[in-house]
Amino acid sequence: VSEFDADTRLEPAGDGAYDATVTDRWNALGGGANGGYLLALCVQALARELAPPDPLAISAFFLRPGATGPARLRTETARSGRRIATGEARLLQDDNEVVRAVASFTDLAAAHGPTDVRNAAPDLPPPEACLDMTGGGSLPGLTITDRFEYRMPQLPGWTQGKPSGEPRSEFWIRFKDGRAPDTIALPGIVDAAAPVLLELGHTSITVELTVHVRGRPAPGWLACRVSTRHLIDGVHEEDFEIWDSQGRLVAQSRQLGLVPG
Amino acid sequence: VSEFDADTRLEPAGDGAYDATVTDRWNALGGGANGGYLLALCVQALARELAPPDPLAISAFFLRPGATGPARLRTETARSGRRIATGEARLLQDDNEVVRAVASFTDLAAAHGPTDVRNAAPDLPPPEACLDMTGGGSLPGLTITDRFEYRMPQLPGWTQGKPSGEPRSEFWIRFKDGRAPDTIALPGIVDAAAPVLLELGHTSITVELTVHVRGRPAPGWLACRVSTRHLIDGVHEEDFEIWDSQGRLVAQSRQLGLVPG
Repeated sequence: VSEFDADTRLEPAGDGAYDATVTDRWNALGGGANGGYLLALCVQALARELAPPDPLAISAFFLRPGATGPARLRTETARSGRRIATGEARLLQDDNEVVRAVASFTDLAAAHGPTDVRNAAPDLPPPEACLDMTGGGSLPGLTITDRFEYRMPQLPGWTQGKPSGEPRSEFWIRFKDGRAPDTIALPGIVDAAAPVLLELGHTSITVELTVHVRGRPAPGWLACRVSTRHLIDGVHEEDFEIWDSQGRLVAQSRQLGLVPG
Repeated sequence: VSEFDADTRLEPAGDGAYDATVTDRWNALGGGANGGYLLALCVQALARELAPPDPLAISAFFLRPGATGPARLRTETARSGRRIATGEARLLQDDNEVVRAVASFTDLAAAHGPTDVRNAAPDLPPPEACLDMTGGGSLPGLTITDRFEYRMPQLPGWTQGKPSGEPRSEFWIRFKDGRAPDTIALPGIVDAAAPVLLELGHTSITVELTVHVRGRPAPGWLACRVSTRHLIDGVHEEDFEIWDSQGRLVAQSRQLGLVPG
């Protein structure tokens, strides 16, 4: 079993509820569990409850930091339609709500209609010609960098103590243990990289994250494009695109964050 | 009382519930009530329940078409924090859930922190030098065009029966009755224009809409920038920016839609 699947395993607790364990293996900047990891637990719970296989749109509100230890997921189905099913998952720890997520699921393999894409995958050198962000190891305290591998043409300024002043980034990502990407994992992966706001010298606390899953990813590396264009009085968005190894857009997300303080 | 405020008026029904009437004055393409109008009812309900004055992030899932007639709003508070309060509103008609919205509210006047904007307001001629999209009248059946005024340098191709092939648009918008824009109205305004996908000859059904309110708008016209960049097997996003008359970004949204069929 992959690390992702082991650490997002759910135990049915009846009435659409599930028990889970938040491990310390996906910790991100700030020290707590990565928001994308907590979101992945919500996605797993909804995938059990809703009939269609693929999350299509998911919006999560982060109410409190997640802590290592037990968690309860409560789910509820809002509507099961012919093409789309929508439900809600709440992640609780010690009876406190940590994440509230609403999601619509569909069968992306059955999606049909016109295609017209006015954008292109990041123009990155192949992963073998890129630098490993963590030099083959991991960043101290950031256990999420033991789970994901990041490859890029140049190391981010913030990792060198020299923020670049440009809040954007393009890089490759994959699970270190070789787990193939799929539509269940994509919603978490859009939050698996450090905020590009670090290139302006700021950190970020996520208020809300919306992910649109746009396709089933082919096996292999995922190419990411991230940017923040509007930082206003400490409030900012981060836009994230994921393109698969065949050059197809498979996920698009935006999160709203606050600069702490 | 403005048309917007009259048509989003709520009657308290106890336990965080409110009664409302969905009027036929905000009908959009497809014939039913505009999604932004239904969202505005949810925003009004949450504004009553949550202490901070401004919606900051709101995500709405559209489960069924809205119908003219009575509606019930049910609200629930997820968390009331020092800086942010989060709640949920469900809009029901005949006991069927039509919209589920989760929102975080804050006090945008108290937001503080760094500012760094890497984008600019649409470069539009002044409204007086633009064309009125509806020629001073309204588009047949689209009663929403009686509520909003749209000004643009050139008329959209789709209104002339000649889709331009370019799924993007920039234009001015304001309430026809002179109501000033505010943070309560902005979440609905991001959905007040016809989908730019019409410029590719397609219509759209909204699955999910996320709005980030980024500032309190100054009085006057609002400048909008809309685009769809990824139409894949009938699934597409629409990105919407609203800039106020002082050239400041005041709202940013993305919706996920399906081409019907």
